[in-house]
Amino acid sequence: MKKETRRTFIQKTTVAGAGLMLTGPLQLFSETNNNKPMSIIKSKGYAGHDKTSGLTLWNFERRAVGDNDILIDIKFSGICHSDIHTIRGHWGEQVYPQVPGHEIAGIVAAVGKNVTKFKVGDKAGVGCMVDSCMQCNSCKNGEEHHCETTGMVGTYGASDKTSPSGITQGGYSNNLVVKEHFAIKIPESISLQNAAPLLCAGITTYSPLTRARFQKGDKVGVAGIGGLGHLAIKLAVLKGAEVYAFTTSESKRQDILSFGAKEVIVVDSPDKLKPYAGKLDYMISTIPYAYNLSDYAVCVKPYGHFTQVGQPVNGEFKIDNAKFFFSRVNFNASLIGGIPETQEVMNLCAENKIYPEIQIIKASEINDAWDKVVNKQARYRYVIDAATI
Amino acid sequence: MKKETRRTFIQKTTVAGAGLMLTGPLQLFSETNNNKPMSIIKSKGYAGHDKTSGLTLWNFERRAVGDNDILIDIKFSGICHSDIHTIRGHWGEQVYPQVPGHEIAGIVAAVGKNVTKFKVGDKAGVGCMVDSCMQCNSCKNGEEHHCETTGMVGTYGASDKTSPSGITQGGYSNNLVVKEHFAIKIPESISLQNAAPLLCAGITTYSPLTRARFQKGDKVGVAGIGGLGHLAIKLAVLKGAEVYAFTTSESKRQDILSFGAKEVIVVDSPDKLKPYAGKLDYMISTIPYAYNLSDYAVCVKPYGHFTQVGQPVNGEFKIDNAKFFFSRVNFNASLIGGIPETQEVMNLCAENKIYPEIQIIKASEINDAWDKVVNKQARYRYVIDAATI
Ligand SMILES: [Zn+2]
Ligand SMILES: [Zn+2]
Ligand SMILES: [Zn+2]
Ligand SMILES: [Zn+2]
Repeated sequence: MKKETRRTFIQKTTVAGAGLMLTGPLQLFSETNNNKPMSIIKSKGYAGHDKTSGLTLWNFERRAVGDNDILIDIKFSGICHSDIHTIRGHWGEQVYPQVPGHEIAGIVAAVGKNVTKFKVGDKAGVGCMVDSCMQCNSCKNGEEHHCETTGMVGTYGASDKTSPSGITQGGYSNNLVVKEHFAIKIPESISLQNAAPLLCAGITTYSPLTRARFQKGDKVGVAGIGGLGHLAIKLAVLKGAEVYAFTTSESKRQDILSFGAKEVIVVDSPDKLKPYAGKLDYMISTIPYAYNLSDYAVCVKPYGHFTQVGQPVNGEFKIDNAKFFFSRVNFNASLIGGIPETQEVMNLCAENKIYPEIQIIKASEINDAWDKVVNKQARYRYVIDAATI
Repeated sequence: MKKETRRTFIQKTTVAGAGLMLTGPLQLFSETNNNKPMSIIKSKGYAGHDKTSGLTLWNFERRAVGDNDILIDIKFSGICHSDIHTIRGHWGEQVYPQVPGHEIAGIVAAVGKNVTKFKVGDKAGVGCMVDSCMQCNSCKNGEEHHCETTGMVGTYGASDKTSPSGITQGGYSNNLVVKEHFAIKIPESISLQNAAPLLCAGITTYSPLTRARFQKGDKVGVAGIGGLGHLAIKLAVLKGAEVYAFTTSESKRQDILSFGAKEVIVVDSPDKLKPYAGKLDYMISTIPYAYNLSDYAVCVKPYGHFTQVGQPVNGEFKIDNAKFFFSRVNFNASLIGGIPETQEVMNLCAENKIYPEIQIIKASEINDAWDKVVNKQARYRYVIDAATI
């Protein structure tokens, strides 16, 4: 009943205008709260306003901190290629204004009364999702991103009746309200700026690399050495793999070797892939545009697996069936990872000092950074200093 | 040296004209033979002469029976959709005249002096390949179709210096000369007409079904219920699967149930697939044209496998990456099977009385049968009575 009332309220106030939200009716939903703000949270962030123009500063509201929620003061937020694809409408129509960002790290500023995982002052992170049904088998098995009933609720752009703007709003902002279950504990030994990219780039590559169960010394290919790919190299090396890195950027060669790769293959023509046909035990591709996937996949040994983690502009790949039946490679695709696995990669990286290569930027540099990501100039992850928003 | 001489000879005689081949120089290559014809073999068959016109009777020659060869008097030859794709140029340019056919069953009429597997009078079959290097790891491991050096030599249309016509010529004909290694023993208990379709349709579905290693009672999907698909059902049922058959032909429903399928799904719209999302343990598709592969693949449970065995006209499939990352299904493709596995499915079917559903036709009906295969009217395999050629 209460939930219904809340929804109805928010729908009404959204129509009536956000200015009305700060008084009176909010008491209805905060009677059970104790040490947390009892009102809608004022936020500011960098939002997209349509498919084409640059992000600009936008003042907006987030829901009041519920009993199971925490409020995070965001300190750093990573820039992911997915942010660009989403706001630019490459993966479907969007609601605007929309604040992207799903590599979020900060300090807990308030907790709801049922919260046990965090206390005020803790380091906390949020990745690609902020809710799911938490009842279905996938949710119970720690695969919340594969929730079978409601589906996962993405960190930005997802329909969200608890949000004054009607959709979830992401991490290019100064704070965030999130169910504690969907927040990740960030160990003391890793900095917030290094932790942020682990929440998408880290888990997205860690999950399939873990599932691949390769042996120490196995040959693992990583294609596309950007924000995701460079972490894939470091994680695969940590797991004992001999890593073959496939890039189109000759200028990344020395960096890539320093990440621990055994060999760098600059694929300036499809011929460069030929010597590797059937040579790798496993391969992961982070290439986020339509490309000759089949030519890469056949680098894997017969009956091995190839995982695609980048999502191209129209979401479609062409595959050459004959290359697949001759190579006998299994193709699969992978989408982020669940909450327990995200906590796992966070702890693992903190413990083993596996850090992303980051460049910290001011909020005013976001649009420029997006251009550089698209033009493959990022080295390797831009992280926004939220203090500059 | 001898091999080189033979090649040179055949190249020369091919230029000079086939009529010259029956005397003199042939003695050069048959000095070691004993109980076999010492000359080029006269053959007749139904050949394609270009991409578009019907097959017509053609008189041609096959090589003399070598020391490791057998000569088969062909009795029956199955019609496979691949025959049509090949002759019509769907998979690449072809050399004509070309006699298709790679489901060949007959009686051994002569053997070379090194032959041990067959004697004159034995039942013998030939499937999709007639040679490979026999030295590489794949060949040694019984995966001759994945030969790593020369590649497998297809039963028709492959460049072949030992063949007077310059290419291999297939089974829509009255005889065939083949290395004994590439001939399959046909048990006494199975008829030649029932054995023929096992040599492509049987092995092509048996090989991935075996590799799938499903458990008794597992749900196995079979998509596309034609020559290959109907055998896939029977073989999966034999292996203990609960089979879900996906067809576009309502008229096949009763037949399909009689093959042992648990359920028939008539996919007259993509919506018909939705109730099966994530339900199957494994799925094999024999659909030989471009189709919405992703919608079928997502019927498999997370982390399960989906195998494509049909090859579409331009050899390319579009895949919806999001359907793959949400479903977590592994896609692979499979190409026929090796010689030991082909012998295995032949023996298994003979023993368990697993027979294809066949319609025996006269050679003069081949072109009509091809039209029916393309128009999905075949029920389920046309087999040519070679006595009518
Ligand atoms: Zn991301
Ligand atoms: Zn759920
Ligand atoms: Zn065939
Ligand atoms: Zn070989």
